[in-house]
Order: sequence, then structure tokens, then C-alpha cells
Amino acid sequence: MNSCTRMWKIWNGLTRTLPKPIKKYPLPKLCSSMSTNASIPEYKREMETFQDVYPSIIETISKNPGLYDNPDVDAWIKKLLDYNLHGGKKARGLATIFAYEILEKPENITEESLRLVRVLGWCVEMLQAYFLIMDDIMDASLTRRGVPCWYRLPEVGLGAINDCNLVQAAMYIVLKEYCEKLPTYNNIVHLFNETLFYTAIGQHLDFTMAHRVKSDYSLFTPERYSAIVTYKTAYYTFKLPVFLGMLVTDNVPQHSHQTAEKICLDLGYLFQMQDDYIDCFGAEHLTGKAGTDIQEGKCSWLAVQALQRLSEPQRKVFIACYGSHEPAHVERIKRLYQELGLPELYRREEKQRYDAIVKLSQTFLPDSGNMPDLFMKLLALTYNRKK
Amino acid sequence: MNSCTRMWKIWNGLTRTLPKPIKKYPLPKLCSSMSTNASIPEYKREMETFQDVYPSIIETISKNPGLYDNPDVDAWIKKLLDYNLHGGKKARGLATIFAYEILEKPENITEESLRLVRVLGWCVEMLQAYFLIMDDIMDASLTRRGVPCWYRLPEVGLGAINDCNLVQAAMYIVLKEYCEKLPTYNNIVHLFNETLFYTAIGQHLDFTMAHRVKSDYSLFTPERYSAIVTYKTAYYTFKLPVFLGMLVTDNVPQHSHQTAEKICLDLGYLFQMQDDYIDCFGAEHLTGKAGTDIQEGKCSWLAVQALQRLSEPQRKVFIACYGSHEPAHVERIKRLYQELGLPELYRREEKQRYDAIVKLSQTFLPDSGNMPDLFMKLLALTYNRKK
Repeated sequence: MNSCTRMWKIWNGLTRTLPKPIKKYPLPKLCSSMSTNASIPEYKREMETFQDVYPSIIETISKNPGLYDNPDVDAWIKKLLDYNLHGGKKARGLATIFAYEILEKPENITEESLRLVRVLGWCVEMLQAYFLIMDDIMDASLTRRGVPCWYRLPEVGLGAINDCNLVQAAMYIVLKEYCEKLPTYNNIVHLFNETLFYTAIGQHLDFTMAHRVKSDYSLFTPERYSAIVTYKTAYYTFKLPVFLGMLVTDNVPQHSHQTAEKICLDLGYLFQMQDDYIDCFGAEHLTGKAGTDIQEGKCSWLAVQALQRLSEPQRKVFIACYGSHEPAHVERIKRLYQELGLPELYRREEKQRYDAIVKLSQTFLPDSGNMPDLFMKLLALTYNRKK
Repeated sequence: MNSCTRMWKIWNGLTRTLPKPIKKYPLPKLCSSMSTNASIPEYKREMETFQDVYPSIIETISKNPGLYDNPDVDAWIKKLLDYNLHGGKKARGLATIFAYEILEKPENITEESLRLVRVLGWCVEMLQAYFLIMDDIMDASLTRRGVPCWYRLPEVGLGAINDCNLVQAAMYIVLKEYCEKLPTYNNIVHLFNETLFYTAIGQHLDFTMAHRVKSDYSLFTPERYSAIVTYKTAYYTFKLPVFLGMLVTDNVPQHSHQTAEKICLDLGYLFQMQDDYIDCFGAEHLTGKAGTDIQEGKCSWLAVQALQRLSEPQRKVFIACYGSHEPAHVERIKRLYQELGLPELYRREEKQRYDAIVKLSQTFLPDSGNMPDLFMKLLALTYNRKK
């Protein structure tokens, strides 16, 4: 069974009821946690194959003369990568592989090409680790993926800032070692650099939101929300994996790139608005964690929508209760969201955004190969998730 | 007057008594502070031409669609770069230009090539700014170049960690915009990435030294000192500017690269041991600042040499007084250094290292062009400085 067929089996194994009126594509339900996905043998196998590449990534990094000369640092980098690259869902790394497998002509898929794209998947995971380590320091987070954040380990501390450099530099080494001979090598490096820049822009927008005067909600606008979501999440979650797949196949015509980017960013928005909704209204027994967006006064999709609709008395309630850890305040905000009809609004907007992505995916010209399939898969992985 | 002639005039204007027996090259005295150098018209002109390129660097960055879409972030990046790229000596940026001007055939030096190499000089300064911003957070430093460290500004704080990403990403944008068409573009990018990695290795070595058990000096060895100096300082201070000059001229044969790298790293060692010596024994009226290496328990050249030579009673004194802010303790350490004859040892080793670099510089084959001249200039800029 080749990889493409395997992919189809995975999706089909996950198939759920389609939202009407779009019936063209089967819509698997995404279970974003590893433990649930791991119960599906095909998914488990895909993940295992991905994991199998990891030791050779570490070996490649270790061969660098700078680490050969400094065995202490070599051991440290291993520990750093092991700690920060494991335990997560690997959604972005796997999406890179999926993008390639769907876009590539079956006859071109070889063990070698799969290995290359898995390596790129790990590079995506390394870029994500780089951002998460930093993000946790800036947000003073306590845990990540159920263990203490890296910077909170006693032997790490603020040295974590430099550890980010080590992760990033290791990523560039891996890119060079495995991809330098590809005709699209420069585009691949530029794509990673663009993602670095855009995600940093998003982080900056987000950081300024979190450090405003607490009662000032003038920045909680739909425009600002859209900018944060696009820059902080969409580029590295969707555009990076999809465009890497495109660059490795090197068979997607230039005229499709703009549409592909637009859909990636739309998927990013959909993904984040869902995340925000689940944080507040998700079932804790499914998500495995209690939401904290209200408590932390986050600029979530719900808060932005609420602020567009509050009456003057409701606004007073919002200002008094939002960003408070007091359970009664949190409940009051949830009730306010209900009073404003936000769950219904959410379902409407989610559906509209879903339909718009389907429609846009159908505008690719025939020479764009399997681009529509790829986006239908990613949409299926994103849409209607419960956690 | 072409740039090469101008360079010669600068060096000659700075000529001082040569140390014997090396008489082949005039040895300018390096005054590392801008204010002193600025009194020499040619130096001032070189610096001004370099500064003149800065606005177009900012303009290039601003043109990026991500900033065009986010004028707030565009304004922030301008402020960030203005604050962190100015006020310093620009030694590494200028060294990049010098390397090019000395290595390039005069007939190939054009306004365009000079502009390109000045842009690269700014990229070197950006990489340095990236590291300094991080370093200041990790060391909890208070001031840099006479003003508060960036992270200490009230509107910045730990957002400075993400600001490093912005600086670095901006650097890659500038590299792409100005250099993508060069045949050596990939080598230039790889050189920056190598420098990023090696400097991070050096930072890690240094950080673990600073966070050891205070009275444990087992890591204060000449080997460890050499590794820290090489990785933390030499690569980005000497190898990066020199090899950028080589990559832009693209006329230095491959067989010279190994020797060139060796000399760069040797220069880095010499530069850092001088820095350490001046921190303790430099004249404050020349350096403009009081040293703090003893107080902060730094792994300096002096501490490492002392630990090689201490008698048992002297060792007790060292352990009792090193790393203390008590003025009597600091004085006691300085006296200990004198008792151990470290100033004489320093002058001997400085001279030996100087001679070794001269000797190595004379081993370049004739097809290596002006490589020996370049290193004699850099040596002259480094050797015997008082601040």
C-alpha cells in the first residue's frame, strides 16, 4: 500500500457526517490529541514512521563540527530537543507529510522523497518548539504538554532564551544537510524565514494586547483579531506545511500560490476561532483541560464578538468580570456570551467560513493537481473539532 | 581617492611604534571608542558612509508586505533597530567593509559593490544586536552603550525576546533583498547561520559557567576558556566579517579558507584576552568604565591563569575574594594577580600570539591576494589597545 492510499484510509477511517450542503468530500472528525488518534492503526503508523526519522535528525545535528568539539553542548542539545519536540500532536509536522503525499504524483513518491519530507516535518516542529519556548517565558506559563515549561527546569532558567537559538540553528543545519541539493532549496529557506518573521509579527501584536491597560478594550477589534490570528497562527500552522509540500513536489503552478495562501490563512482563522470557542464552551472531559482565556483577559474571538454587541449595562458587567480568576466572574462572562447569542453566531460563522473555504478550493485550475483535495483534507481535520 | 587608498590613509594616520621584531607592517593603535576615532577625518568619513546606508536598510524592511499590513509593527521595528543598532563602535560592520576593500581588486570596487558590502556590514550589526539583546536579558544587565538595556524600557520588558526574532528576521529579509542574485548568496546565508549556531554554543558554554556552584572553579580551565572565547566571540567578531568580504570578492581560493579561519579565531582569542586584561588593569580614564569581571566571578583569562598557578594558601584567598563586590576583596584579587606575575605573563603571551598570527598570515600562497594585508590590518586594530 503506498503512502497516498494509506492517507486515504486514514481519512476514511475518520469519516463523520458531512455538514450540508457540501457533500463532495468526506469529512473526518479531527481528534487533536495523540492518545485518541493513536487508537487508529493507520494514524499510529504514520506517526511512528515520522518518529522513526527523529534519530537521524539528531545524528545529523551531532555531526556538526561545533558540537563534535563541544560534547557538553551536544548532550545539552539532545536533551533540549527531546524535551521540546515530544509530547505534542505533531499536527504541523504531519500536515507537511500529508501535503506532500496528496500533491505528489504517486509514481514520484519514493522512500527517499518521503524521508526528505519527514525531515522537513521535523524542521516545522523545530520552528514551533522555538516559538513555544519563547512564548512560555514571555507569558510566564507554568506547564506545556503536561510537563513544566522548559525554562522552569532548575538547570535551564533564562538560559532557555539562548536554547531557542540552538533549536533554530539546528533547524537550519538540518535544512542545509538534507535539502541543499533541491532546486527549490532557496525557496524552502525563504519560506522558513518568512514564517519566522510573520510569526514574530503576530507575537508582537499579541504581546501588546496582553500588556495594555487592563480595562482598555479599544484594541479588541475584529481587524486586530484577524491580524493576530493570521500572523501568529495561520502562517506557521497552515502555510508553512502546505507550501513545503508544494515546494518538494515542485509541480504546483505559480498561479495557484495566491489562492493556496489565501486558503491557508482562512484555515488558520477557522482553526483559531474554534480554539477560542472550545476554550470557553468545550467539554472539559474531551479537551482534558479547563479553559483560561476569560481569566487571562485574552483577545479571543468570543470577547471581540461580545464587545461588538454589548449594551451599556452589559459592557459594565464585561469590564467588571473579564480578566478575573474569580469563578463567579468567569461564569458571569459565559452567561453574557450566551445572552448575546454567541454560540449561535459561532456556529453560523464557522459554517460560513467552512463553505467559503470549500468554494475557494474549487477555484483552482485543473493544472493545480490535487490542491482541492489537500485543502478538503485540511478543512476536514480542522472543522467541527471538539478539542 | 578610491576606497582602498582611503583605507590606507586611515591606517597610516593611526600608525604607532611597532613592536619588535615585526616591522613589515605599520601598526595603528586601535581606539575602540567612536569618539576618539571620530577625530580622524578619514575614519569619520568611512563611518558616515556606513551610516548613510542605514535609511535604505530600514526602507527595505518596511516594504515587506507583513509590515505594510501592520503599521504598528513597522513603527515598532524602526524604534527597535534605531535603539539597538546605534551608539556602538560598529567595529564588526566596518571590519566587513575593510575586508572587502582590502581583498577586492581596485578595478572591481564600484559604488554598487561598496553599497552591497555596507549592507552586509549592517546585517553583521543586526546579528550582533540580536545577541546583545538576549545576552542582556540572560545576564540581567542594566545598561548597554550608556543607555538602559532594551528589555528594561517600560514598554518592552520580556517582549524583548520576541523583538530578537524581529531583528533576526529583518536581517534575513535584507540579505535576501540585496544579495539573492549573488553567486555566493547561499554561502553568505550559511555563514550567517553558522555564526548564529556557533555563537549560541559559546553563549551556552558561558551561561553554564556563570550558573555553576559559586566556589567550584573546576571549569575554569584554559581549554574551556579557549572554547568560550572562540565560540562566543571569535566567530562573529572576526570570521563573519572576514569571510563576508571574501564571499563578496569571490576571488579567494578555497585552499586559503582554513588558514583564514584559523587566523580569525586566533585574533578572537587575542581580542578577548586583551578585553579581560583591560577590565582588570586598564586605565579607567581611557576605558571610560570600571571593570566588573572580578566582582561578577567571570571566567576571565586572568582568573584561569591564576588558578593554574595558585599555591594552597593563595587558593584560599582566591576562593574567599573572587566573585565579591567588596572593594577590599577586589583589591586583594588584583594584588594576587600581581604576586603571580600575571601582567608579565600577559605581555609575553600577547606578544607570542601576535607573532604567531603574523607568521601564519605569511603562509598564504601568492594567489590568495591581499589576505596577509587584511590580517595585518585586523591585527593592528586589535593589538596593544588600551581600551
